[in-house]
Amino acid sequence: MSSYRFCLERGGRDGPRAGRLVMPHGEIPTPAFMPCASRAVVRACAPDDLASVGVETMVCNTHHLRLRPGADVVASLGGLHAFMAWSGPLATDSGGYQAFSLAGPGAVSEDGVKLRSPVDGSLVFLSPEESVRAQEALGADVAVALDLCSPYPVTHDQAREHVQQTLRWAERCRAAHRREDQWLWGVVQGSVHADLREFSARETAALGFTGFGVGGLSVGESRGEMLAALEVAVAHLPPEAPRWVMGVGTPRDLVECVLRGADLCDCVLPTRMARHGSVLGRDGALKIGNAEYRTDPRPLDDECDCPACRLYSRAYLHHLFRLEEAAGWRLLSLHNLRYYARLIERIRGAVAEGTLQDLLAELPAWTRRDLEGAEE
Amino acid sequence: MSSYRFCLERGGRDGPRAGRLVMPHGEIPTPAFMPCASRAVVRACAPDDLASVGVETMVCNTHHLRLRPGADVVASLGGLHAFMAWSGPLATDSGGYQAFSLAGPGAVSEDGVKLRSPVDGSLVFLSPEESVRAQEALGADVAVALDLCSPYPVTHDQAREHVQQTLRWAERCRAAHRREDQWLWGVVQGSVHADLREFSARETAALGFTGFGVGGLSVGESRGEMLAALEVAVAHLPPEAPRWVMGVGTPRDLVECVLRGADLCDCVLPTRMARHGSVLGRDGALKIGNAEYRTDPRPLDDECDCPACRLYSRAYLHHLFRLEEAAGWRLLSLHNLRYYARLIERIRGAVAEGTLQDLLAELPAWTRRDLEGAEE
Repeated sequence: MSSYRFCLERGGRDGPRAGRLVMPHGEIPTPAFMPCASRAVVRACAPDDLASVGVETMVCNTHHLRLRPGADVVASLGGLHAFMAWSGPLATDSGGYQAFSLAGPGAVSEDGVKLRSPVDGSLVFLSPEESVRAQEALGADVAVALDLCSPYPVTHDQAREHVQQTLRWAERCRAAHRREDQWLWGVVQGSVHADLREFSARETAALGFTGFGVGGLSVGESRGEMLAALEVAVAHLPPEAPRWVMGVGTPRDLVECVLRGADLCDCVLPTRMARHGSVLGRDGALKIGNAEYRTDPRPLDDECDCPACRLYSRAYLHHLFRLEEAAGWRLLSLHNLRYYARLIERIRGAVAEGTLQDLLAELPAWTRRDLEGAEE
Repeated sequence: MSSYRFCLERGGRDGPRAGRLVMPHGEIPTPAFMPCASRAVVRACAPDDLASVGVETMVCNTHHLRLRPGADVVASLGGLHAFMAWSGPLATDSGGYQAFSLAGPGAVSEDGVKLRSPVDGSLVFLSPEESVRAQEALGADVAVALDLCSPYPVTHDQAREHVQQTLRWAERCRAAHRREDQWLWGVVQGSVHADLREFSARETAALGFTGFGVGGLSVGESRGEMLAALEVAVAHLPPEAPRWVMGVGTPRDLVECVLRGADLCDCVLPTRMARHGSVLGRDGALKIGNAEYRTDPRPLDDECDCPACRLYSRAYLHHLFRLEEAAGWRLLSLHNLRYYARLIERIRGAVAEGTLQDLLAELPAWTRRDLEGAEE
């Protein structure tokens, strides 16, 4: 039997689902959320901090880690799990998203993609085979085939090109992948074009993948467009396979995606918001840097059990934030990660009880305006 | 009976001593070391981190906290202990040292001192009475009378002026101090001039203080000059009173000071070194940013029980340091604080056994050269 599998326990092709992802480094219930440890660290937090706030798994960035410290360096140290001293499941992305955000025009060819190095700004080449080789060296439980993320907006012709390129690379990744203790997932692209999302989902599934990323979302399109694209993609993926909605999103986005069949989401939002002083709570985002919190003795959230809420006042966290103190970024990050972890627990409960729409109605309006200051 | 007292259990006027400082927020054995939580936070570390690495007490900075968040703000939140969620003893300095490091020429008058604000660069005035008032509002266990620290080098005439000014301010501080649950200590100055150190010690003691800081050390003079000045000062202080050697120092300095009768030391060194990647260990300072550690799977120190050593490799800490990651600063700071805490335990043991000279011989040579990169 394979060292990884997905057990779908509730739901089917469409709508909310629940299950278990069984992976070489452990089993997690779904739906699940993965914080981003892009450079093998969730920013400002040590890996041992994370389990204490209910983090179950993380996603690391292949492009960043391949350059620093280097995939072979990580492999020589026993892989990402040993390197980070994290015993639970991990995923790596393909590095393809960085083609979208870091590379210039003309950077993509049939062979692969030229990416901008975040270390020294030079251009480095990434082929499908090299993406797989690097991810095998990193050794996460879930690896992802190299994909090409369409920018937004994009013409239908361009988006079709990106889908077809992603399919050709996916095939090469399947052929290159060797590790039997690592699960290689294919990625659906197609921007907001329904026919392309359907085509991408069908053809990626036809390549034989047993797990799927839905990529190219939350890159500038409206929430309505994003959710419509997701709906089409999942409608044409095998229901028994897990679906990771990549790079999404806000607390409301999480619920919306699970309503449409997502099993896994990842996003930098909780920790990025924390570094900008946006604290997640029942009533929306509290901006801890605001003057009103300077003398506020209350915890961030009196129902939260994270270290920031158990031990410190808003006034102290305001003070640390105004000092631009690393200790403050960490405490606020742990709070926001705890918020996401508790939200995922509530989402699981609501899936079981069929009350996900009610949960959505209870959440504050996480519009882009709500997140002002949290966006890069 | 007073809520604070010093119980001297071993030693006398000169040489190594051991005892207990009993304070409103707890009792600590001496000799003791106080990390600097200048802005009510040991940089990069949360207060709850500190007890776990053996920190027993801390010193906060009156000048900084008076301006941000404000002494009255801290008082309204229940004082520094409640603000920081730290239940153990705390000390505050007088703000006087900042006259040395922050103020310009002509900033000192009989009334007090003009200090540069670290918040907005403006000049703010601090009188002896205001220093006491702010420290009473902050509410640490130990407060310090406003002193004037001589720069180095300084003429005998100037240093005598600074001593006499410090004495006149000390008298005003004694008169202004009201809190019975707070211990007000006087400060000995006099630079490297033996006759002035003697005069300052005798006259400060004559004012009736029952605890003493020895200030104006480690400001540029040689280690030999520093230790000679300390020797003269303690020889003329009442043996039954505790002595805090302020702003000193390296691990070797700690032992040297205890050899000469110090009960308490404080220094930013362990955390400042950590932020510069200097890791304290048996063999001296390990520079974690060096390329040799990129692939080193060993802990920083295989005999250390801090979180960094228990959980992570040099390779991972090297990675975090090279990323300039706040998580790395914290872990390295906790390690260095643990080193100091264990060193102080060894110092106490050596005082009890009369083997402090042997301990000094075992320590690596913490010369200024050893600390390259750790100095500001």
